[in-house]
Amino acid sequence: MNLEIRPAVEKDMEDVWTLIRELAIYEKEPNAVEISVKDLINHAFSNSPLFVCFVAILNNKTVGMSLGYPRYSTWKGPTMHLEDLIVTENFRGLGIGQALFSNFIKYSYDKEVKRIEWAVLNWNFDAIKFYESNGAKVSDDWHIAQMNEKAISDFINKNK
Amino acid sequence: MNLEIRPAVEKDMEDVWTLIRELAIYEKEPNAVEISVKDLINHAFSNSPLFVCFVAILNNKTVGMSLGYPRYSTWKGPTMHLEDLIVTENFRGLGIGQALFSNFIKYSYDKEVKRIEWAVLNWNFDAIKFYESNGAKVSDDWHIAQMNEKAISDFINKNK
Repeated sequence: MNLEIRPAVEKDMEDVWTLIRELAIYEKEPNAVEISVKDLINHAFSNSPLFVCFVAILNNKTVGMSLGYPRYSTWKGPTMHLEDLIVTENFRGLGIGQALFSNFIKYSYDKEVKRIEWAVLNWNFDAIKFYESNGAKVSDDWHIAQMNEKAISDFINKNK
Repeated sequence: MNLEIRPAVEKDMEDVWTLIRELAIYEKEPNAVEISVKDLINHAFSNSPLFVCFVAILNNKTVGMSLGYPRYSTWKGPTMHLEDLIVTENFRGLGIGQALFSNFIKYSYDKEVKRIEWAVLNWNFDAIKFYESNGAKVSDDWHIAQMNEKAISDFINKNK
């Protein structure tokens, strides 16, 4: 299998967007992707990039990607967050996810972070098993609180 | 009540560390704080700061803090993460948490982020109620996966 994992460049962002959209459909949120290819390029390749991205290339075809960014723990110090790890449906079960995951862990290890973390949907048992088999601790101790754009602007208007 | 919320400066980091440690005790992890005051200063006031921090000052005493950093959603774009919101125990119930929270939301709104998010312990009903009353959606759909330093180096050794 002629698989290469490498840092994404600008011209990969169209394929990356397609993978993001594929994951949104899998996660039952087909209309949730508001971002554009141009946004991804601007956010990844500015002077202060908002994320790092790696692509998996199999026989000249983009079949997967990982995307993450630094975070911070007030207990441990600098950490990395894995936002997305996606392998396109027809190429699952070939070890491409494992190769992307391994690449991301090595990238983070070289940055000497104190922790790597990410979120996984509670019904995605295959993913949970995959992460646990790689040494991750998966916990349901935490709930995620979110304010979207509307909740933020409602809050601002109420608290003027 | 003579309450001021302002961006933290270097000399606040000792008080910030004390608040972080107080929260760790409350969250039943008294020995989890590995970070030092010097680390916090280095991470907050370098050329590429890892977080922003605000302190609540009541009659010249530091009684609370908020701490956060940018994140990224591949569906929405730039977001903000609220890592900690702490009010020291003897000064709770006076609206200081609300003032710190409000300040952080306004700071994030001015940055035009698409979402603000944070994690809350599933048994901390008071906090969940507080966040929901401010318009946040609190969800248990996600589990948190983490690899600590040992899990990372074990993984690296296994996958050489």
